[in-house]
Amino acid sequence: MADKYVIGIDFGTESGRAVLVRVADGEEIASAVYKYENGVIDERLPFGGPPLPPDFALQDPDDYIRTIEHTIPTVLSAAGAEISKNVVGIGIDFTACTMLPVRAGEGLPLCREEKFRRQPHAWVKLWKHHAAQGEANALNEVAARRGEAFLPRYGGKISSEWFFPKVWETLKQAPEVYEAADRFIEAADWVVWQLTGVETRNACTAGYKAIWSKREGFPSADFFAALNPRLRRVVDEKMSRTILPAGTCAGGLTPAWAEKLGLLPGIAVAVANVDAHVAVPACTVVSPGKMVMVMGTSICHMVLGNEERFVPGMCGVVEDGILPGYFGYEAGQSAVGDIFAWFVENGVPARYAEEAEARGLSLYSLMEEKAAGLKPGESGLLALDWWNGNRSILVDADLSGLIIGYHLQTTAGELYRTLLEATAFGTQTIISAFVEHGVPVEELYACGGLPEKSPLLMQIFADVTGKPIKVAASAQTPALGSAMFAAVAAGPERGGHRSIIEAAQAMARLKDRVYRPNPEAHAVYKELYAEYVRLHDYFGRDQGSVMKRLRRIKGGKGK
Amino acid sequence: MADKYVIGIDFGTESGRAVLVRVADGEEIASAVYKYENGVIDERLPFGGPPLPPDFALQDPDDYIRTIEHTIPTVLSAAGAEISKNVVGIGIDFTACTMLPVRAGEGLPLCREEKFRRQPHAWVKLWKHHAAQGEANALNEVAARRGEAFLPRYGGKISSEWFFPKVWETLKQAPEVYEAADRFIEAADWVVWQLTGVETRNACTAGYKAIWSKREGFPSADFFAALNPRLRRVVDEKMSRTILPAGTCAGGLTPAWAEKLGLLPGIAVAVANVDAHVAVPACTVVSPGKMVMVMGTSICHMVLGNEERFVPGMCGVVEDGILPGYFGYEAGQSAVGDIFAWFVENGVPARYAEEAEARGLSLYSLMEEKAAGLKPGESGLLALDWWNGNRSILVDADLSGLIIGYHLQTTAGELYRTLLEATAFGTQTIISAFVEHGVPVEELYACGGLPEKSPLLMQIFADVTGKPIKVAASAQTPALGSAMFAAVAAGPERGGHRSIIEAAQAMARLKDRVYRPNPEAHAVYKELYAEYVRLHDYFGRDQGSVMKRLRRIKGGKGK
Repeated sequence: MADKYVIGIDFGTESGRAVLVRVADGEEIASAVYKYENGVIDERLPFGGPPLPPDFALQDPDDYIRTIEHTIPTVLSAAGAEISKNVVGIGIDFTACTMLPVRAGEGLPLCREEKFRRQPHAWVKLWKHHAAQGEANALNEVAARRGEAFLPRYGGKISSEWFFPKVWETLKQAPEVYEAADRFIEAADWVVWQLTGVETRNACTAGYKAIWSKREGFPSADFFAALNPRLRRVVDEKMSRTILPAGTCAGGLTPAWAEKLGLLPGIAVAVANVDAHVAVPACTVVSPGKMVMVMGTSICHMVLGNEERFVPGMCGVVEDGILPGYFGYEAGQSAVGDIFAWFVENGVPARYAEEAEARGLSLYSLMEEKAAGLKPGESGLLALDWWNGNRSILVDADLSGLIIGYHLQTTAGELYRTLLEATAFGTQTIISAFVEHGVPVEELYACGGLPEKSPLLMQIFADVTGKPIKVAASAQTPALGSAMFAAVAAGPERGGHRSIIEAAQAMARLKDRVYRPNPEAHAVYKELYAEYVRLHDYFGRDQGSVMKRLRRIKGGKGK
Repeated sequence: MADKYVIGIDFGTESGRAVLVRVADGEEIASAVYKYENGVIDERLPFGGPPLPPDFALQDPDDYIRTIEHTIPTVLSAAGAEISKNVVGIGIDFTACTMLPVRAGEGLPLCREEKFRRQPHAWVKLWKHHAAQGEANALNEVAARRGEAFLPRYGGKISSEWFFPKVWETLKQAPEVYEAADRFIEAADWVVWQLTGVETRNACTAGYKAIWSKREGFPSADFFAALNPRLRRVVDEKMSRTILPAGTCAGGLTPAWAEKLGLLPGIAVAVANVDAHVAVPACTVVSPGKMVMVMGTSICHMVLGNEERFVPGMCGVVEDGILPGYFGYEAGQSAVGDIFAWFVENGVPARYAEEAEARGLSLYSLMEEKAAGLKPGESGLLALDWWNGNRSILVDADLSGLIIGYHLQTTAGELYRTLLEATAFGTQTIISAFVEHGVPVEELYACGGLPEKSPLLMQIFADVTGKPIKVAASAQTPALGSAMFAAVAAGPERGGHRSIIEAAQAMARLKDRVYRPNPEAHAVYKELYAEYVRLHDYFGRDQGSVMKRLRRIKGGKGK
């Protein structure tokens, strides 16, 4: 039998990326990227109109269609006809919660209808659409008052980024859109619907973003009615109670799509998934005790567990949420690479820029070099990495960054290293929270852009946590993970894999280099981490802290 | 009678500056600067030799002589012969405590002798020589244990920068220098000795730096013996108990100097003084309730009082220390302009440097412009201005700077403004300490480099303190102040002034522009100041604070 292939597509915030992979060994044959024409819509809708309100972040569903139309033919043409006809499956992963209102039947997005084109709530609400904070706060209050059992599964708080706050916002702000919507659906599931003609919903987004659990289902009608009587039947009227686990085949590729893309009709399309979560098996991780970190502008931390534990401040625990048969735990840091980018953009003096240029280095590389020449603790500096608030374990968007220990001799290289260290301390607080609450973390696995760019950062993470870190071999881990789930959806009879565990064993690889903790550095970082925790608790846990009050003073002034 | 003139010379850290002034109205006829050939000696002695130990800061007394030889002929030649022969007095001010060991008789510095040229302790120890911290600590401990009455006059602590720690360090480290020294003397008094042939000591340095008071004299022999038996008679053996108040005539200019400089022999040379303190009458201030701020790399704060009060954390209170008839209070911030310079040098991104260049602005001006466009509290940022420790009111060199409130949107302009604000909050803590302990402060007066350079800083100081700020007209206030004391030393019979009050009325002027507090800004700053005080007390008053522990961790690593 000829070699079989699968395609994974990773839908990111600014672009989508497809990778064509060999089923037998995960070899990446070709890849292609499509940058969304309308990107993140946060100022005006694509055809103009009035400015959007603050905290809006929308997308155009046609950008997802264009991503498929562009990237799949590109990778197939690079691979050649022989390979194209041996593609047995497609899998996709997506940012989440990224959702939209659509019609029944073919899933027509309301924003494509003339009558709703000018209505922002008819468009895709991107994960970082933050305008439903009021609804999230009210939802949390009601849930806490009613003692809803789901709250502890989400570390005690539902985020404004998630599904029901966004739906409720639409009901409040644009009731005609709520009324007209036959379905509210994750964009991930909508794309699979478009490819297969079959409406499905995946367990990962349902579990992490829509308060669903395998054992308890969605929250009760009474709970929704307590939010707003019109939400009482939201699940039955606008969603579905059929939730499929990752690796399930959602349906076959439609003949129309097959023809357009140059694939065989009917090949398996896997149920959709979340970008961070598909990275877990793509990092070879298919058992508990191993934390996977998707490290980019932010970090998403995932661990598998055999039991359900409640960890305060985690993003969520979902049974089968990452891999079937396990409880999938998720936590996160809301800014990591973003902080380094902020510093390189805003905090590095001109003479360093000149030095970098003269030596043909990027400013990042130069700062990395300067930071690498320093010893732990030597600068006397320490930072709290809350430039974009704190996702885990404090779950507080109002927190801010802090640097302590400045002297007249302090250099930009020292500050840069301090920021790298601070993000590692942030990860350590998450590891500690998991371990303290019965979710073991013994080894670390990393993927994403940062491990490719900053060996120093990886070494600091190893030295701070005292744990070895293995790095995924693929530079596009989520797309590889989606391709692996595509192979599972295709199944062994079509040349795919029996399970995601088998797929991970065959297709996922790690780089040779393992970052191992240096005991001497770890000892110093233990001391520094104790100070980090003091600052963390002093500024982060007290509602009356200086940090909170500064935020209120700032709010009172505004621009 | 022809117009009479006086010359003031201000001996700074890097250079000396002379100004020739008309007695009648303070008109500045000419000025000249001499940059010290050997500057601050902190790496090697001028002829080479081994590296100096850390924290050493020495000077070459010949640089002071060259300053006189260079600047006085320069101002005289600019003024012309007619004016030169009508110069009736010379006054000098100096950094302090800046002291040296000399021989009796003509005051030959030991560092000029072949046998001591290679001995660092034979050179001038500059004010910022910090190597006697161990001696200062021990001295404070002994003084506290013995309940010495002088301690409260110095806010509870004698600084390592002051006279006796430096002398004791010499005794310990270079007993042969201690033995050979007939005199330990302030460089200020040594220069006057050179000009007149008469050894005098001024009340200002004796009071603020050598634990002398008009009523109690120096500490007791028993106290000195408790430090080291060989120090028992240090005052009688190596110093003098004759201490003269400011404005006294130390003696007449020697014929040799008169000839060399082009002045008349025998003209009055005033007893020496300290740079910051002579600025008080040069800012027109000759009565209580008015705080004078000499604003440059650091800030020195001075207030006159009618009574002796003990203010914790002040630098000192000295009867007649600033003006005869008053208690002179001093406090200080150890870095102000230094922090802004650090930021402009280390924290401003290349695109701002390019913008400044394109627009023909200094980087300071550009940052001032960006900071000026912001409203108080708008950035959400707050800083502790301890980049060089805290002089008043915490008296703790181990403290460090802090910035809180960083976001991904934070700009360098916001950070710059935050640093300006932090120094104003630092001054406010000093004002509060004085007021709480019975030393009234109603108005502020400023002089030095910063008021010339940064109107925004002055407005922020007014807005933070809620007090109007008047600024000295002269850009070289200390030199003018010295010239005023020269006029007093000359006295009315030689065409000078009867008293420093009369001299101030005639010769000192203010700029027209007064910085008045904006009530709206003051209201916001009151809120922010409350937060500053919380951070100040949390990090500054607790010996177990994160800041102190970071310092210890840093100390443990070292470079």
